[in-house]
Amino acid sequence: MTDSYEEIRDAVRALCATFPPEYHRKVDEDRAYPEAFVDALTEAGWLAALIPEEFGGSGLGLTEASVIMEEINRAGGNSGACHGQMYNMGTLLRHGSEAQKLKYLPKIASGELRLQSMGVTEPTTGTDTTKIKTTAVKKGDRYVVNGQKVWISRVQHSDLMILLARTTPLTEVKKKSHGMSIFIVDLKDAIGNGMDVKPIPNMVNHETNELFFDNLEIPEENLIGEEGMGFKYILDGLNAERTLIAAECIGDGYWFIDKVSDYVKERTVFGRPIGQNQGVQFPIAEAHIEVEAANLMRFEACRLFDAKQPCGAQANMAKYLAAKASWEAANACLQFHGGFGFANEYDVERKFRETRLYQVAPISTNLILSYVAEHVLGLPRSF
Amino acid sequence: MTDSYEEIRDAVRALCATFPPEYHRKVDEDRAYPEAFVDALTEAGWLAALIPEEFGGSGLGLTEASVIMEEINRAGGNSGACHGQMYNMGTLLRHGSEAQKLKYLPKIASGELRLQSMGVTEPTTGTDTTKIKTTAVKKGDRYVVNGQKVWISRVQHSDLMILLARTTPLTEVKKKSHGMSIFIVDLKDAIGNGMDVKPIPNMVNHETNELFFDNLEIPEENLIGEEGMGFKYILDGLNAERTLIAAECIGDGYWFIDKVSDYVKERTVFGRPIGQNQGVQFPIAEAHIEVEAANLMRFEACRLFDAKQPCGAQANMAKYLAAKASWEAANACLQFHGGFGFANEYDVERKFRETRLYQVAPISTNLILSYVAEHVLGLPRSF
Amino acid sequence: MTDSYEEIRDAVRALCATFPPEYHRKVDEDRAYPEAFVDALTEAGWLAALIPEEFGGSGLGLTEASVIMEEINRAGGNSGACHGQMYNMGTLLRHGSEAQKLKYLPKIASGELRLQSMGVTEPTTGTDTTKIKTTAVKKGDRYVVNGQKVWISRVQHSDLMILLARTTPLTEVKKKSHGMSIFIVDLKDAIGNGMDVKPIPNMVNHETNELFFDNLEIPEENLIGEEGMGFKYILDGLNAERTLIAAECIGDGYWFIDKVSDYVKERTVFGRPIGQNQGVQFPIAEAHIEVEAANLMRFEACRLFDAKQPCGAQANMAKYLAAKASWEAANACLQFHGGFGFANEYDVERKFRETRLYQVAPISTNLILSYVAEHVLGLPRSF
Amino acid sequence: MTDSYEEIRDAVRALCATFPPEYHRKVDEDRAYPEAFVDALTEAGWLAALIPEEFGGSGLGLTEASVIMEEINRAGGNSGACHGQMYNMGTLLRHGSEAQKLKYLPKIASGELRLQSMGVTEPTTGTDTTKIKTTAVKKGDRYVVNGQKVWISRVQHSDLMILLARTTPLTEVKKKSHGMSIFIVDLKDAIGNGMDVKPIPNMVNHETNELFFDNLEIPEENLIGEEGMGFKYILDGLNAERTLIAAECIGDGYWFIDKVSDYVKERTVFGRPIGQNQGVQFPIAEAHIEVEAANLMRFEACRLFDAKQPCGAQANMAKYLAAKASWEAANACLQFHGGFGFANEYDVERKFRETRLYQVAPISTNLILSYVAEHVLGLPRSF
Repeated sequence: MTDSYEEIRDAVRALCATFPPEYHRKVDEDRAYPEAFVDALTEAGWLAALIPEEFGGSGLGLTEASVIMEEINRAGGNSGACHGQMYNMGTLLRHGSEAQKLKYLPKIASGELRLQSMGVTEPTTGTDTTKIKTTAVKKGDRYVVNGQKVWISRVQHSDLMILLARTTPLTEVKKKSHGMSIFIVDLKDAIGNGMDVKPIPNMVNHETNELFFDNLEIPEENLIGEEGMGFKYILDGLNAERTLIAAECIGDGYWFIDKVSDYVKERTVFGRPIGQNQGVQFPIAEAHIEVEAANLMRFEACRLFDAKQPCGAQANMAKYLAAKASWEAANACLQFHGGFGFANEYDVERKFRETRLYQVAPISTNLILSYVAEHVLGLPRSF
Repeated sequence: MTDSYEEIRDAVRALCATFPPEYHRKVDEDRAYPEAFVDALTEAGWLAALIPEEFGGSGLGLTEASVIMEEINRAGGNSGACHGQMYNMGTLLRHGSEAQKLKYLPKIASGELRLQSMGVTEPTTGTDTTKIKTTAVKKGDRYVVNGQKVWISRVQHSDLMILLARTTPLTEVKKKSHGMSIFIVDLKDAIGNGMDVKPIPNMVNHETNELFFDNLEIPEENLIGEEGMGFKYILDGLNAERTLIAAECIGDGYWFIDKVSDYVKERTVFGRPIGQNQGVQFPIAEAHIEVEAANLMRFEACRLFDAKQPCGAQANMAKYLAAKASWEAANACLQFHGGFGFANEYDVERKFRETRLYQVAPISTNLILSYVAEHVLGLPRSF
Repeated sequence: MTDSYEEIRDAVRALCATFPPEYHRKVDEDRAYPEAFVDALTEAGWLAALIPEEFGGSGLGLTEASVIMEEINRAGGNSGACHGQMYNMGTLLRHGSEAQKLKYLPKIASGELRLQSMGVTEPTTGTDTTKIKTTAVKKGDRYVVNGQKVWISRVQHSDLMILLARTTPLTEVKKKSHGMSIFIVDLKDAIGNGMDVKPIPNMVNHETNELFFDNLEIPEENLIGEEGMGFKYILDGLNAERTLIAAECIGDGYWFIDKVSDYVKERTVFGRPIGQNQGVQFPIAEAHIEVEAANLMRFEACRLFDAKQPCGAQANMAKYLAAKASWEAANACLQFHGGFGFANEYDVERKFRETRLYQVAPISTNLILSYVAEHVLGLPRSF
Repeated sequence: MTDSYEEIRDAVRALCATFPPEYHRKVDEDRAYPEAFVDALTEAGWLAALIPEEFGGSGLGLTEASVIMEEINRAGGNSGACHGQMYNMGTLLRHGSEAQKLKYLPKIASGELRLQSMGVTEPTTGTDTTKIKTTAVKKGDRYVVNGQKVWISRVQHSDLMILLARTTPLTEVKKKSHGMSIFIVDLKDAIGNGMDVKPIPNMVNHETNELFFDNLEIPEENLIGEEGMGFKYILDGLNAERTLIAAECIGDGYWFIDKVSDYVKERTVFGRPIGQNQGVQFPIAEAHIEVEAANLMRFEACRLFDAKQPCGAQANMAKYLAAKASWEAANACLQFHGGFGFANEYDVERKFRETRLYQVAPISTNLILSYVAEHVLGLPRSF
C-alpha cells in the first residue's frame, strides 16, 4: 500500500477532527446541511481529488478519493453531504466538451460551483432506467423538459445537476438503452422556472427530493456528449460510485467497531467489563473481520479502476461486502450500548440510521447479487 | 383459540383504526405523547384489562391483555406509550395492601391516575439490579431517597411511579437480592421536591429519562409489601412483561409483513411486480414464518401464565423469538420499499426504529440466551 | 396437551431405548436396513398408528403418529427406515376401494406386508410432477408401465409400492394435473419382470433407488381410485407427510441439544467447562429456542389436521422451521464436540448427515418459501 | 499478482486433472490413502515448495505454497492427505540443527521420507496446550515418553512425526508455556515399541488417530532446538498453517461454486433452468462473494508472511473467512443439487463432509474470534 494515501488519510483525518461529534449531531438534529464541514473539505481541496490538475483539481486516483470519503465517515461525519461533489463531475470529465470542462470543472474544483445532484431515478421506474418518462424535446436552440424525478439528492445545496431525459421516444429506438441524453442543469435558473423541488423528509439527514419538470428549458450547449448516449454515460460512472460508496461504508464500519470496542472495555456490569462476554465480543469481532475483508475488496476495485482494468465485479462485490459489514457493525454497536445506543448523545443511533441506507442506495443488495449471478457466474438473468 | 379474544381483537382494531397513520406520524415528528390515543384506549377500558373487576378493571387474563397490545402495534401505533399503564399496577396488585389497592387501582382503571413508570435501572448497574446505589433511608414516618436512575419511561406523562431503592446496605444483607424495597411515588409531589427529571432524546419517540434523587421524601405508607423484598416483587412481574412485549413485537411483525406484501404486489419494475422476485418474496415469507412461530410461543406463554403454571422459559423464548421476527420483518419491509422505506410518509422508517428497541429493552437478547442456557439447559452461568 | 400422547411417548421411548447407539451406528456403518428395529416398532403396533382399528391398526391421530416418529429420531435412530410404512397407506385408505383396503391394510398393520415405497419423482422433472414421463397404458385387464423413477426409497425392503404414472398423455388433458393415476405395485412380482432397481449410494444410510420400467404389467385391480385422479390423491397426503417430517426433525433437534448440552457441561478446557463460554452456550440456546418454536408449529399443524381443518400453511411452516432448527442444532452439536463430533463413535456425525437431508426432501426449503409467499401472503408465483 | 504463481497454478491444475473424480471418490469409498495422488504431487516437487533449494526443495514462498494447496482442493481432491508433508517440516527448518536439516529435509523433499504427522493435541486438554500430560523424561542419551495424544493425522502414512511433550513438570516452570519440547519421532521404530496407534473412524476420509505412549524411547539427538522451548516453536508455525488452510478452503469454495453454477444452468424444472430462480442464484452469488473476499485476505496474509511482517491477524481472519465461505458454498451446492447432492457419484456430498472439518480444525471458529477480540480489538480475554 503506497505512502501517498497514508498522507492523505492523515490529513483528512486531522481536518475532520476539528468537527467534533457535537457538530454532526446538531446538523442531524436540525436536519441541516453541514455547510462549514463541506466548505472546509472543499477549501482543503479534498473534494476535487478526481479533477485533473489542468482543471484545478488534484488529479488523484480513485484509491485516494476513496480514502477521503472513508475518513469522513470514519470521523463520525456523513460523506453523503459531499460525495456528489466529488464524483458527479466524472460524467462531465469523461464525456463533456473541452468548452464545458473549462467552464465548469475549475469552479467545481474551487467550490465556487457545486455539482452535487444527479437526476436519474423516477418514481415509476425504480432501477429500470430505460423506462424513464422524463422527456427533453429539442425546440430551436433549447431542450424542453417535462416529467418527474425522485430521490434526487442535495438539490437545495447544489448549483448544478446532471439530468437524464429521453430525447428519442422508446418506440423509435433500436435498443431501449438508446435515445436518452444527459444535460447539465443550472439549478438557480431552473428552480421556479419549469422545475419544482419537493423535499422528502426521511429517516436520515439526507436531503433528497422529488423534482417536477414543466417545460423546463435547457440551452442546447448544456447537452453533454452526444445526444442519445446518456444512458451509457451514466453507466460509465457506476463502478467508481459503488467503490466510493464501499469506502464510505468501511469508514462507518470502523467508526462502529472503534466506538463499541471502547464502550465494552469500559462498561462494567456484573463485576466485569461487558466486553469480556463472548456474546458481546464475538459479534464485534465478526463485524470487524467483515469490515477488513470488505476493505480488501474495495482496494482491489480501486486498484483495477486506477489501472483502467475492468472492475465491475470487484466494485459491486466491494459495495455488497462493505454495506453488509457496516450494517453488522452498526447492529453490534447499537446492541451492546444497550439503551445508550438509542440516546442521541452517543451518536450511535445517527450513524446506525445513516449506514442502513447503503443497503438500498445507490444500488440495492439484490441487484448486486443479480449482477454477480449473471455477469460473473454466467447464470440466467432472473427478471 | 377462544372466541373471547377474537372479540377483543376486533374491538381494539376498530378503535385503533380511528387513528390513521398521519396521527402516529405527526406524534413521532413532534416527539409528542399520543394523548388522544392513550385516552381513547383508556376510556374504552382496554388498558385496565389486567385490573380485577372488583377494582374497576375488566379482570381479563394475560392472553387478552397481550392481544390488546398486539393490536395497538399492528394498527401502526406504538404501545410503548401505554404498556406501563397496563402492567405496572401488577406489582401493586400482587404485593400492595388492601388500602393501597383501593386507593390506586380504581383510579388507574378509570385513567384518572396513570402509573406509567417503573424506576429500576441505574446508569452504573445495567441489568445487575442488586447493585443499585439508590437508597431509601427510614426517617420517622418517611423514607428519604438519594441516588439516580436512567431509562425511566413516561415520567412526564405519568402520575405515579414504582421505585426500587435499597433500604438495607448490601454489606448488611445475607443475600444480595435482599434489602431492596419498592415504593409508590406520587410524581406531582416528587418532581422538583427532591426528584429531578432529565429527558433523554433518542432514536424513537419514546419518552425516557434520567432521574436524580436528592433527599426525596416518600411517606412510609407508600412502601409496597414488606421492606427488603422489593427485588423479588420486581422479578414476579417479569414474565408477564416479557410476554406482553412479545405480543407487541408480533403486532409490529404483522404490520411490516402486511405493509411490504401490499407494496411488492403493486410496485412494478422491469415489467412485473417486484414481489414476483424470489429475492424479494423469500425474505418476506421467512419473516412471516418467524412471526407465526413466535406468535405460537407467545400464546403458549400466555396460556401457562393464565393457568398459573411456570412460564419463565416460554415468556423468555417468546420475547426472543418475537423481537427477532419483528426485526427480520422490519428489515425486509424497509429494504423492499427501496428509497420509499426511508421516507417518513410511508411509516416504515418509524416502525423500523421503534421495533429495533425490543432487542435491547426490557431485556437484551443476550440475557435471554443466558437465561435459556442456564435455567432451561442447565449449562453453567457464563458471567 | 393431552395425556394420551404422553403415554405413547413414554412407551415408544422405552422401546427405542432397547436399541442402543451401537445398534444404529453399526447399521449405518454397514449401510444396512434396521430390520430388528423396524420389526420391534411394527410388532408393538406403532407403525400402524394411522390405520383405523377396523383394519387392524390403532386408529390414532396425526398428533400421536408424529410423536412416534419424533421419538424414534430423538432416541438416536432414524425414522427414515419406517416412515413410509406409517403414512404411505394413507393414499390407499383415502382413495382405495373397500376390497383393496381389506386386502392390504390389515397386513400392513401387522407388518406382514410393507408398503414402504412411493414412486413419484422422476429424474428429468424434479418437483414439477405434472411433467412425469412414466406412462401406464391400459392393455386388456392390465396396465403396461414404461419409464423411469428416481429417489424411490426402501424398495429393497418393501413389499409394495404406490406408483404414479401418466395414463392420459399431457396433450390430451384439459389441466396438466389430470391424466395421472396411482397403482399399487407388488414389488416381488415386479422386480425383474419389467422393473429394475438400481440403488443410489449416498451420504446417509437411506436406501434410495433409481427404477426402470420396461413393460411392467400391473393388474387393473391395482389401480387406486379413479383413473386420471392420481396427482390429486398424491397431493392429499402432503400435509400429513410434511408434518410427520417436521416431527422427525424435532426429534433430531432434541437429540442434538441433549447431546451437546451434556458434552459441554463435562468437557473442560482452560480450566472450566466449555459450556460456560457464551460462544458455546448461546448457539445451543438459540437452536433450542428454534426447536421449541418449530415444535409448537408442528403441534398446531397436527391439531388442525386431526380437526379436519385446513393446515397447508401450518404443515409447510412446521416443516420449514423444524428442518432449519434441527440443522442449527446439528451444527452446534458437531462444532462444540470439536474433533469428537466427527468421530463415528459419538454418533453426532451420523445424525448430522441424516438431518441435513430434511432441507431437501421431501420438499426443499425454497419450495416452502414459494408456497408461503404465494398461498399465504398472496404474492405472485415466482416460477 | 505475480506471474510466478499463475504458472504454478496452471501446472498443479494440469497434474491434478490427471486424477479424475472417480479416483477421489474411490479413495473416499475405501477410506484409503491417495497414494498415487500424493506420489505424483511429491514427484513433481509441489510438496517441497517450502523447503529451501539448498535442502532439495523449491524454496518458494507461502503464497506459492498456498496456491498449490488451493489447486488440490479446487480440483476435487483433498489436500488433507498431504498438507502435513508440506508444512510440518517448517518446525525442523526453523528450529532444527544443521545436522537434523541435512539428515531429513532432502529426503522429505524427494518424498523418500514423509513427515506428515504432528503430535500435539491430547484428549483431556483440547486447545489448552500448556496442560498436556505427555511427558518426556531424559534417561541417559534418550528421552522416555509416556502419555497419550488424539487427532494425530496420517500416522499410518508417514515416516516421521513431530511430537510435543512436557520435559519439565508444570509445577517447576515459571511460565506454563515453558518446559515443553519437540522431538522428531521415527514412526517405523516407534510403532509397537512404546507407541500404539488407534485409528478413529470419522465422517471424512481423514486418517486420524489416538496415540498411546508407554515408555517410548527417543534418541536425544531427535530433540529439536532447545529443551523446554517446544511450545514456542509450535506457535511459530501457526500463521503459515492457518493461511494454507484458508487456501484449501478457498479451493473447496471455488469447486462448490463451479459445480453448482454448472448444475443450475443445466437443470431444468418447471420449464426453465433452476439457476434462473433468485432463490437459487442469490445464495450462490453470496457464497461466491464470500469466497472472493476470503481469497483477498488469504493473499494479504501470504504477502505479509513472505515479507516477514506480522500476519497473525490476517492469517486468522483468512482462515475464519475462508472456512465460513467454503461452508456457505458447500451448503448452496448441496442444496441446489436436490437429491443428487447426496448421491456419492456427484462428489458434492464428499466435499461437503470434508470442508465442514475446517470450521473445527486446526483451530475452531470460536478461538479465532477470541483471538481477534483480544489481540486485534484489545478486548479482555473471555476464558
